[in-house]
Amino acid sequence: MKKIEAIIKPFKLDEVKEALHEVGLQGITVLEAKGFGRQKGHTELYRGAEYVVDFLPKVKIEVICEDSVADRAIEAITNAARTGRIGDGKIFVSSIDDVIRIRTGEKGEAAI
Amino acid sequence: MKKIEAIIKPFKLDEVKEALHEVGLQGITVLEAKGFGRQKGHTELYRGAEYVVDFLPKVKIEVICEDSVADRAIEAITNAARTGRIGDGKIFVSSIDDVIRIRTGEKGEAAI
Amino acid sequence: MKKIEAIIKPFKLDEVKEALHEVGLQGITVLEAKGFGRQKGHTELYRGAEYVVDFLPKVKIEVICEDSVADRAIEAITNAARTGRIGDGKIFVSSIDDVIRIRTGEKGEAAI
Ligand SMILES: Nc1ncnc2c1ncn2[C@@H]1O[C@H](COP(=O)(O)OP(=O)(O)OP(=O)(O)O)[C@@H](O)[C@H]1O
Ligand SMILES: Nc1ncnc2c1ncn2[C@@H]1O[C@H](COP(=O)(O)OP(=O)(O)OP(=O)(O)O)[C@@H](O)[C@H]1O
Ligand SMILES: Nc1ncnc2c1ncn2[C@@H]1O[C@H](COP(=O)(O)OP(=O)(O)OP(=O)(O)O)[C@@H](O)[C@H]1O
Ligand SMILES: [Mg+2]
Ligand SMILES: [Mg+2]
Ligand SMILES: [Mg+2]
Repeated sequence: MKKIEAIIKPFKLDEVKEALHEVGLQGITVLEAKGFGRQKGHTELYRGAEYVVDFLPKVKIEVICEDSVADRAIEAITNAARTGRIGDGKIFVSSIDDVIRIRTGEKGEAAI
Repeated sequence: MKKIEAIIKPFKLDEVKEALHEVGLQGITVLEAKGFGRQKGHTELYRGAEYVVDFLPKVKIEVICEDSVADRAIEAITNAARTGRIGDGKIFVSSIDDVIRIRTGEKGEAAI
Repeated sequence: MKKIEAIIKPFKLDEVKEALHEVGLQGITVLEAKGFGRQKGHTELYRGAEYVVDFLPKVKIEVICEDSVADRAIEAITNAARTGRIGDGKIFVSSIDDVIRIRTGEKGEAAI
């Protein structure tokens, strides 16, 4: 099973959520974050205004899915989150050993 | 070493914390999150009211522990967080390569 | 590629950021967190006042980097975040399978 973590622009959350839903992904966790990438000292557009890129508000999305769905999920996030401008975000993919659904005690892929 | 991430109902945080303490776990990190699981478009109870399940407030717990303690930690979280209703939460288990205690520079299991 | 997660004292964020920049690391994600380590029931100093250590405000930093840079990043964080007092924080290191830069579609180390 894979964990897909995406740091995106906050206003893209709804589009990313819909895109994940369209490829059949149902579970998603969202956290507020701030961050910066490669443009430290340069400017980035945020809500129409230019900011010196230090920490900018970002949203962190976490999606756990089966291996076979990961590529589709990554593509869905990439396409939905992209504006073409710097700061569009990053996706980090890692491996998960186990999943447990607390209500039922189900484990593994059945619990996703 | 294992990383146990649990997304739970916020009002269950204290019970989960106590349950972890009872199995000997001392360290815990907590983040505010929002999310949804499989019931998109259906309703979930939150503080006695019914919500259409889009994003609901959740708490994310992160516990790093030795491999030998992981099963007990997962069981403790599962039992403490369960209400029997949908939305009780998920646990994700992954592997950690190293831990460092910043104050002392200790590494590995000694640093947990 | 490695994921370095560090839970530090909030007032140390700027120093840690500068230390990472000095070893050539450009990307960083920051989340607000709360937590406790081994001193449950004891006191910890926070902004000059003593608190019984239950949940204290912490900052969580996430840095994804190439394997060859990880040790330098860990050392930079450790040195910048250390005050010598309890509660200085923890660093957790894990492995990342892939990285994607959303704007360009680049993958792997080129996307970091
Ligand atoms: N190496 C990294 N480690 C941790 N977080 C990162 C890293 N790189 C980027 N991020 C996070 O992703 C967010 C978006 O990064 P961003 O899209 O600016 O990446 P970038 O590499 O600078 O690409 P671009 O040139 O398109 O701006 C940052 O604000 C930060 O939160
Ligand atoms: N696949 C997933 N990826 C990421 N986060 C998830 C996933 N599934 C659930 N979550 C997180 O866990 C929270 C609780 O999920 P929930 O307990 O509703 O799971 P579920 O599979 O729908 O089980 P149930 O049928 O008991 O409701 C969600 O709000 C979301 O934050
Ligand atoms: N095992 C753990 N799992 C998850 N988070 C942890 C763990 N240990 C510590 N943390 C997080 O790191 C923060 C700082 O921990 P802390 O520095 O107090 O660790 P410690 O082991 O008690 O070391 P010290 O003796 O120097 O205080 C905690 O508030 C918590 O958020
Ligand atoms: Mg950038
Ligand atoms: Mg659900
Ligand atoms: Mg401590």
